[in-house]
Amino acid sequence: MYEVADLPSGPLDIYRKNASFNWKDMLRFIDGEEMLAFKQHVFKTLENDPLFARRPGEDIAIDKMRELTFLRVKQLFRYNFLSKEEAMANPLKTVILNDCLGMYDWAVTAKYFLHNGVSVNKCLGSGRHTKYVEDVEDMMLYGCFALTELSHGSNTRAMRTTATYDPSTQEFVINSPDFEAAKFWVGNLGKTATHAVVFAQLYTPDKVCHGLHSFIVPVRDPKTLLALPGVLVGDMGKKLGQNGLDNGAKHNTTHKKHSNTEERFGASLGALSGGRVSITRMALTNLKLALVIAIRFSATRRQFGPKDTEEIPVLEYQLQQWRLIPYLAAAYALEHFTKSIFMNFVEFQIGQVMRDKSDRQAELGREIHALGCSSKPLGSWTAQRGIQECREACGGHGYLAMNRLGDLRNDNDPNSTYEGDNNVLLQQTSNYLLSFLHAKLHGHLYTCLSLLVPLAAYKWLVCFLLEESKKRLEQQRALGKDEFEAHNNSQVYYCRSLSITYIEHNCLQRFHEVTIDQDTPAGLRPVLSKLCALYGLWSLNSHIATLYQGNYMSGRKPAELVQMAILTLCSQLKDDTVALVDVFSPSDFILNSPIGNADGQLYKNLWSAVMQGNQALERPSWWREFCSDKPVVGSLYSKL
Amino acid sequence: MYEVADLPSGPLDIYRKNASFNWKDMLRFIDGEEMLAFKQHVFKTLENDPLFARRPGEDIAIDKMRELTFLRVKQLFRYNFLSKEEAMANPLKTVILNDCLGMYDWAVTAKYFLHNGVSVNKCLGSGRHTKYVEDVEDMMLYGCFALTELSHGSNTRAMRTTATYDPSTQEFVINSPDFEAAKFWVGNLGKTATHAVVFAQLYTPDKVCHGLHSFIVPVRDPKTLLALPGVLVGDMGKKLGQNGLDNGAKHNTTHKKHSNTEERFGASLGALSGGRVSITRMALTNLKLALVIAIRFSATRRQFGPKDTEEIPVLEYQLQQWRLIPYLAAAYALEHFTKSIFMNFVEFQIGQVMRDKSDRQAELGREIHALGCSSKPLGSWTAQRGIQECREACGGHGYLAMNRLGDLRNDNDPNSTYEGDNNVLLQQTSNYLLSFLHAKLHGHLYTCLSLLVPLAAYKWLVCFLLEESKKRLEQQRALGKDEFEAHNNSQVYYCRSLSITYIEHNCLQRFHEVTIDQDTPAGLRPVLSKLCALYGLWSLNSHIATLYQGNYMSGRKPAELVQMAILTLCSQLKDDTVALVDVFSPSDFILNSPIGNADGQLYKNLWSAVMQGNQALERPSWWREFCSDKPVVGSLYSKL
Repeated sequence: MYEVADLPSGPLDIYRKNASFNWKDMLRFIDGEEMLAFKQHVFKTLENDPLFARRPGEDIAIDKMRELTFLRVKQLFRYNFLSKEEAMANPLKTVILNDCLGMYDWAVTAKYFLHNGVSVNKCLGSGRHTKYVEDVEDMMLYGCFALTELSHGSNTRAMRTTATYDPSTQEFVINSPDFEAAKFWVGNLGKTATHAVVFAQLYTPDKVCHGLHSFIVPVRDPKTLLALPGVLVGDMGKKLGQNGLDNGAKHNTTHKKHSNTEERFGASLGALSGGRVSITRMALTNLKLALVIAIRFSATRRQFGPKDTEEIPVLEYQLQQWRLIPYLAAAYALEHFTKSIFMNFVEFQIGQVMRDKSDRQAELGREIHALGCSSKPLGSWTAQRGIQECREACGGHGYLAMNRLGDLRNDNDPNSTYEGDNNVLLQQTSNYLLSFLHAKLHGHLYTCLSLLVPLAAYKWLVCFLLEESKKRLEQQRALGKDEFEAHNNSQVYYCRSLSITYIEHNCLQRFHEVTIDQDTPAGLRPVLSKLCALYGLWSLNSHIATLYQGNYMSGRKPAELVQMAILTLCSQLKDDTVALVDVFSPSDFILNSPIGNADGQLYKNLWSAVMQGNQALERPSWWREFCSDKPVVGSLYSKL
Repeated sequence: MYEVADLPSGPLDIYRKNASFNWKDMLRFIDGEEMLAFKQHVFKTLENDPLFARRPGEDIAIDKMRELTFLRVKQLFRYNFLSKEEAMANPLKTVILNDCLGMYDWAVTAKYFLHNGVSVNKCLGSGRHTKYVEDVEDMMLYGCFALTELSHGSNTRAMRTTATYDPSTQEFVINSPDFEAAKFWVGNLGKTATHAVVFAQLYTPDKVCHGLHSFIVPVRDPKTLLALPGVLVGDMGKKLGQNGLDNGAKHNTTHKKHSNTEERFGASLGALSGGRVSITRMALTNLKLALVIAIRFSATRRQFGPKDTEEIPVLEYQLQQWRLIPYLAAAYALEHFTKSIFMNFVEFQIGQVMRDKSDRQAELGREIHALGCSSKPLGSWTAQRGIQECREACGGHGYLAMNRLGDLRNDNDPNSTYEGDNNVLLQQTSNYLLSFLHAKLHGHLYTCLSLLVPLAAYKWLVCFLLEESKKRLEQQRALGKDEFEAHNNSQVYYCRSLSITYIEHNCLQRFHEVTIDQDTPAGLRPVLSKLCALYGLWSLNSHIATLYQGNYMSGRKPAELVQMAILTLCSQLKDDTVALVDVFSPSDFILNSPIGNADGQLYKNLWSAVMQGNQALERPSWWREFCSDKPVVGSLYSKL
């Protein structure tokens, strides 16, 4: 059995001793022996490699950060933590590897997987590309995925880059008619990619457009990293987060290429679902790290108290509990949810590989698309709000870069908008749900009502909003609006809310199943049940007006009961929170946040990190600017 | 009359032509001729001075950024845009100057005003400090304000730094007993401050503590910027935002000082109110800039459309309108609100200077404290959420640093936690409101009900939550809880909501008065009324569950009416949005966001900024790392 090390003793001991469950049992239950060992192996390896060393809150220039990221990615190739064979045998291991590397740094992770993604994308193409795949695996060439253009993101069909087949040379000529059609946001393309999988509208010599197809396009000379003639390729510069990753833009007027991957864009929609499921997990990982930091901080930061002589940990305040613990419950709900939909996705992928043409497979595909489109908004927004709450809950110390809450927020930021804007994606989900009404399958959607209050209320909510959305759509049509406008005018308060309640219900339902599963250790079931109830009630509380509106509840009592139950659960879970984040927490090295260290020595760690800051105690290099050349006040004053 | 320049023609023309009002009239109405001229003068001066030149999204090392900030501040001394005399004669001008400089960069602004703040704080001390004040004004010394300690922020009374009077030398000995009592977060102290106004517990030789007093403590030699003997002073390093400002920590075991400012901390609470009112305005300024960027982007970014051949601006989508326009309405509401409470604050300050000891003055002080404590949460949270929505509403382009939405969010971030954590401050406001109940003044709080739906609903809400909060408190006391715990357990869903509705109502009421004021130009009243109604209904919608809970409304209709009114108002205001942000917008140079330029040439400006990025088209300096030393995959692989 894999031995889980004890955590260092210190100010967090009190809470750890008061926990209602054994955190090592929870860790084993969630990860399992094999994954646990794998995680620790990855963490230790990074910690022991000087190339991965870093200082909390260090200020690194972008070019340097990109170099470091590249060197670290190269090192990951050498470590090769997960072979293709192992990944095939245990797909969940790729999720765990992604978690581990992401906890260290998302830019490194993205740069590593984006490159490998080109190789994975071989499924897009024919056997002809085996040579490329091998070169990718050996890093002889470096890949990227170029879909989005400067003027088009969500509307993929409107992409304007073309690929025209020239029968005389048997080549495809790739053309971006103007800079608005330049490929934009391509990860790895800024500095390092030598080859791009470019999506372009395929034209045959008869000038018929066959839709978006992908083409492998060389962009830089692998021997010099200089751009190839006819290719304008540039770095997009600084982003809000993940600055180790070089996103780039590519513009070429005419460019000859010999090979296409012979697959239409539509067929790779499945791959996009996988991407969204994976983003949900990435967002969760950020939320977990933020919670580790904020909960440990709250358990050791003391401020005010019942007596003037004694201050209490801020975690003891109901307000602080209410700000943080529901997000902790959400993280536990999402922990299970993200793994569970990932396994659904794997099942679907296997069906695809097996060329399963059954109705069930087709239906699974549609459901996974709907789940992926709404799970990304659920995960990324929950993380966005949760991280912001964690940062504010740590007061000023949360504002210090070295405590990492800013980086977590910034690195999480793209999750809300890439691989489909959250609000646009939610429309896919509501369309899927509305299709059930057309198919007269409505009665089958939810047949049994659970006794659990939030689950039952959620079922009602989804049905109510489905009906209301349908009515709203019909109303719009009756007003003479076309489908485009009718749908647009039914998003706010209707279809959008429908998709959100649908995915929250789905996540809650899956979590609920874990809490009643016989395989869940009896010692963990009570705390998991509380987390599940808290997540359900807290999420439900944001829809409570709709419950009133639809007469599902009325009068003062029901809302009050929900709210009092939330506060009671927060208070009951309060002593478990430190143990609950211990389960999520990576090693101090990976967490990289002085106020979040496992020893709970908040001030000692923070003070020492400040004192060890770069030139913290030195006078500034430009001190003479202060001491000489004093300004004459108003010397440049000019009257209006 | 001050001539307002026309905005450049371009893709935004369509919306500008469709606006229901004249944007120049609105500008004159909001700012007035004098302020308008002053603003343009400040903007132009900065734009014409090469020291203030910058490139969108540039990546500058922290040390360099601090140097640049310092040099810019020095230049501001030379410009001396606002003399003390002018500021006294027209206090609103300091607000406008703060707006203008903040729109350029908050770090420069903070560094400038924090230093001057020491001079303003002369009111804390006696005539003995005139010498200091003069030296501050000439920048011979550089000041800062040191209150917060490493382990204490909100709980100012628990500050542990002491000042002990030594009669033998007639000096005060300042002592931080350990690093947990080190002064922390002091703006300007990281690199430049030579003198600090330090708050310490004053002890007389008889060992009696007289509470927090302020002392002027020299910390660095003004001739060399080296720390003085016995003083450990360091830079705190990188923060989430405002990195041009050098926040610092100071720790000294024993340190002799000759002068105190002879004023207790309590008396300067008024100054803190001023700070909070000013933070509300700073947050609003950030929100305005974000809205300029997001609205202009939304009016020019086209994606999808009713026909395959034609795409429509994303601003035409109901969803996009609903995401952005309510924040625009909030910005207009806060525009008036922040000026209006600032003038209340000035009135109060004048009373203080005049030594007005009347009941009215005392009551005004309490009300301003309550308003300041809740206006900061209202402003900073509205801005935080609004900027995040703007950033997401711009999709991927919002994630690019050069478009500035990230900096706006990051620079706005401290507003939620400094000068009092938002959640803690809200408790001050609810305590103030609850005191009315004790004084049996309840009936006087709101005597007349307006016909306007949201105003009436808000009045009911405040009264309802006041009653409920009181009941909740009494319930807690009946359970045997002491006052400390009773109050803590009454925050969530009660006192906290009470304070929020109170300040939202106050803001709405003041805005409403503008819309019915005879001095408001008739041509502007319709659009202002719509903005006021939208702000009211949209804010109210977040409390709608409470309205149901208290039976203020029931059934499906009322909530539906509120929501439909919100959507209708958004749609009615849609064509006005571009003109509404034109009113707020500074020059392109100050706005510094290619997607937000006044000419609306979204892609041209963005593409050109990317291409002009530092080394955008160059291969990386570390290109050889790519081309040679290829990794052998798995060469470092180790079995678990």
